[in-house]
Amino acid sequence: MELIDGNAIAATLIAELKATVAALPGRAPCLALVRVGEDPASVSYVRKKEKTAAELGVTSRVILPAITVTQAELEQLIDDLNADPAVDGILVQSPLPTHLDELAIFRRVDPAKDVDGFHTLNLGKIAQEDATGFVACTPAGIMELLTRSQVDLAGKHVVVLGRSLIVGKPVALLALQKKTGANATVTVCHSGTRDLSSITRLADVLIAAIGRAEFVTADMIKPGAVVIDVGINRVADASKKTGYRLTGDVHFPSVSPLCSKITPVPGGVGPMTVALLMHNTIKARRQRLGPTTR
Amino acid sequence: MELIDGNAIAATLIAELKATVAALPGRAPCLALVRVGEDPASVSYVRKKEKTAAELGVTSRVILPAITVTQAELEQLIDDLNADPAVDGILVQSPLPTHLDELAIFRRVDPAKDVDGFHTLNLGKIAQEDATGFVACTPAGIMELLTRSQVDLAGKHVVVLGRSLIVGKPVALLALQKKTGANATVTVCHSGTRDLSSITRLADVLIAAIGRAEFVTADMIKPGAVVIDVGINRVADASKKTGYRLTGDVHFPSVSPLCSKITPVPGGVGPMTVALLMHNTIKARRQRLGPTTR
Repeated sequence: MELIDGNAIAATLIAELKATVAALPGRAPCLALVRVGEDPASVSYVRKKEKTAAELGVTSRVILPAITVTQAELEQLIDDLNADPAVDGILVQSPLPTHLDELAIFRRVDPAKDVDGFHTLNLGKIAQEDATGFVACTPAGIMELLTRSQVDLAGKHVVVLGRSLIVGKPVALLALQKKTGANATVTVCHSGTRDLSSITRLADVLIAAIGRAEFVTADMIKPGAVVIDVGINRVADASKKTGYRLTGDVHFPSVSPLCSKITPVPGGVGPMTVALLMHNTIKARRQRLGPTTR
Repeated sequence: MELIDGNAIAATLIAELKATVAALPGRAPCLALVRVGEDPASVSYVRKKEKTAAELGVTSRVILPAITVTQAELEQLIDDLNADPAVDGILVQSPLPTHLDELAIFRRVDPAKDVDGFHTLNLGKIAQEDATGFVACTPAGIMELLTRSQVDLAGKHVVVLGRSLIVGKPVALLALQKKTGANATVTVCHSGTRDLSSITRLADVLIAAIGRAEFVTADMIKPGAVVIDVGINRVADASKKTGYRLTGDVHFPSVSPLCSKITPVPGGVGPMTVALLMHNTIKARRQRLGPTTR
């Protein structure tokens, strides 16, 4: 069994992106990070994005509307960022407070600045295999992890566990694409799937994104499979200072001995997402600079 | 084995739509049909759409740009139709002559008038389970056939053979949706799938859209499966006046005895597509009329 080291792969990618940024003409790429409210996880994610941007030479502009911001005010803020020529990418940190219509906000972002890849048009472009679009950071990070771990999906059976809009569906569409590294046969399973283990046992590559701690157990795995664990779940653990430990959607102790390759949690898919956000921001900057620098 | 009679189901749907049109306030819905060139199949398809529209009380406006039309001229024509308040739906008959960029033309159509459902935004809306979008007529027709044949996909394993943008991918996304009648486990297979019959034999519902005459044979079927044959292929046949016969992607004589239900070709999916185009045109009209008439 080989551990897929997301931290190491992300570090390599970030070093490459740093060289790319240094070679760009004109000003540095600029990412606007919009965070509403003080949800501790959101605070920590936005800080991490800011820090990685600084490391790469990407400018970040953090905008912190009050928790009482109205839908109209937030939409006006997005419109201003869309119109601002100094801004290349816009990320609105999810989840938004419940009084706001999150999907409407995601759709308000100019698709050409939608570095989070949540706009309907960018989702449609994945289905259309149109590489000008932006792919959401988690599915893009999964594909990058596989490629850089020498896992070629061509002819493989990829089983995706979970059909969410930000992981399951886009990663299924990416694995289906005709391009090099993809071209897989793809099955999407979910909470409504009958006899789930009979399906997951078909997987040459299993992508677990169902959001249930240690849900995937040894009996669900074909020996030799590659397992990508997208889950990040908090499980109560009195032995920890914080009172919890992080675990994936896969029961690592029993599953990992069966795998040819597997991602750990933490340190697997997680570190890739911020790297892919930076990749998307640089891509947005290049697209705005025009074809000569692509 | 029960034959799914697409002609009868389409006739029922058309009768319902006729009643809907009669009850709409104001002018009749109007569909613009744009056909470039004299491809015999395109001529016949557009004529069929015109005829069905007339039957329903939907106004059609057939526009026939010369085969020499440039991309810019055709885009201007689309822009004019987009801006025309008397037009509710726009269909550009595919295939366009090869000097034209078909995808760019499909994307030029206002998504709110895109009754063919080929715009990137409408494809993204299927993934987002946003019912305000337009679903392409063939996948929408397949779902309607299944519903009206009392085939509930919930908990079923749907195997889609073919990953095209106008059938395979959208029908896979529709079958995956959480709504009533859908909620299936979905596998998409294609020309690059290894050991194809081992996958198709898992199918409770097999949707064949691979574009190869009589490709699906008895050894690929689980007994009791529902089979939807989307193919329309011409096979040379000296006994016919035309010199050919039409056949689906399924070898009907050997497969049909194994099925619980199966669509014939012709007379299965085909008749549904025109009915769904009318459904979409009426939906576009209603959306333009505003929420009171929805």
